[in-house]
Amino acid sequence: MSGRLAVVGLGPGSPEQMTPQARHAVAAATDLFGYGPYLDRIALLPHQTRHASDNREEISRAGAALAMATEGRHVAVVSGGDAGVFAMAAAVCEAIEHGPAEWRAVDLEVVPGVTAMLAVAARVGAPLGHDFCAMSLSDNLKPWDLIEARLRAVSAAGFVIALYNPISRARPWQLGRAFEILREHLPAATPVISGRAAGRPDERIAIASLGEADATVADMATCVIIGSAETRVVAREGLAPLVYSPRSAGRIST
Amino acid sequence: MSGRLAVVGLGPGSPEQMTPQARHAVAAATDLFGYGPYLDRIALLPHQTRHASDNREEISRAGAALAMATEGRHVAVVSGGDAGVFAMAAAVCEAIEHGPAEWRAVDLEVVPGVTAMLAVAARVGAPLGHDFCAMSLSDNLKPWDLIEARLRAVSAAGFVIALYNPISRARPWQLGRAFEILREHLPAATPVISGRAAGRPDERIAIASLGEADATVADMATCVIIGSAETRVVAREGLAPLVYSPRSAGRIST
Repeated sequence: MSGRLAVVGLGPGSPEQMTPQARHAVAAATDLFGYGPYLDRIALLPHQTRHASDNREEISRAGAALAMATEGRHVAVVSGGDAGVFAMAAAVCEAIEHGPAEWRAVDLEVVPGVTAMLAVAARVGAPLGHDFCAMSLSDNLKPWDLIEARLRAVSAAGFVIALYNPISRARPWQLGRAFEILREHLPAATPVISGRAAGRPDERIAIASLGEADATVADMATCVIIGSAETRVVAREGLAPLVYSPRSAGRIST
Repeated sequence: MSGRLAVVGLGPGSPEQMTPQARHAVAAATDLFGYGPYLDRIALLPHQTRHASDNREEISRAGAALAMATEGRHVAVVSGGDAGVFAMAAAVCEAIEHGPAEWRAVDLEVVPGVTAMLAVAARVGAPLGHDFCAMSLSDNLKPWDLIEARLRAVSAAGFVIALYNPISRARPWQLGRAFEILREHLPAATPVISGRAAGRPDERIAIASLGEADATVADMATCVIIGSAETRVVAREGLAPLVYSPRSAGRIST
């Protein structure tokens, strides 16, 4: 008997930014899997069982959830933000590809959500208003050389860059090194936005220039957005400045 | 007197994918501005006035909305998807930067939403599961040469690519040309996903290989996602294949 598996993006944290589709998918589950702090956002119903795991156990969590779905349970695997952006949907697909044949028969639904960069961008204006990219800065799953090459490629080509997983206790120097690389390709005045817990009571948003950006303000849950050479900062009296990337572009640095 | 201006991302189309924050921001407005088809999604309340305009009048729409906000009205400007991704938030910021001083005093709120690439990706698995970029393929506001250079830079560097505004009646050849360029850098088997109206009753999602991708299946409202060389397609008996980009990466084409 094949059950159902929903991989659900809970949004950046505020219930105001969780879609009804995500709320319904969570409510319909008998079993909820995820990283503990994401599961903590959900008030369990009486018929629901919670399966919390550490945030680096993505593949084993995906396998456990798939195994339970094949037993006929209705399983939800939750992620913060969007389910498919540096989150659990890719781990579930990977587990399906390499797992037992019956996992391919599971009724799989991926429920999208507002990913962190969109919530952070909204708090300062529209820094993602033109071509942009999203990169994980974690070198747990890819070589650091590749990350450096990608940072150089996209900054030279004029993309705004959103960095996920910018720093952790085990990876303390990577964000500082990323700023160094980007300073080779972008003006010192390029705006850098660090956003954490956007839309939540403990929200922390900071705007700096690339020349003065300090990697120590970020943690694992921070999304860091680095503008392009065309990104603008608009001062406002008595209000936070606006940061936006114009809809038109004309230059490319080489 | 300064009023309020909310720039609201309505999500990809289904009410199930619109956040409560967006719903509340729309309900609180006295005046709603936007491209007609987006405004059509909203059932007006008795006290609300609708101001529809064409989709290429972004700056004049932003200015009209800001002028009305400075008169003390509560204005909402709506976008499909996210408000800040190739949408109205950047146009509003641009109007503020270049407009009369009182526009800077407007109480501006940007309300994020589920942008098209996330909704399309969710329907096929997790193609955005690793580093990716989002580009507008419209050469109305940037030179075509710059678009080609960006396509080459990100495909060579191993990013998955989400293309917005891929084609229109006035821009019939650009998507086909983009596929030609990408074929120079990516294997013919690279998956290409075309998604339109994701999550709506008229949804249309197609998966092809880059070698056989046909630009004529897309229109202005389609989001086209081109995998990286590492993006996988997982066949499933009796079900649509899954497409995902693994969380780990190790190669870079040069």
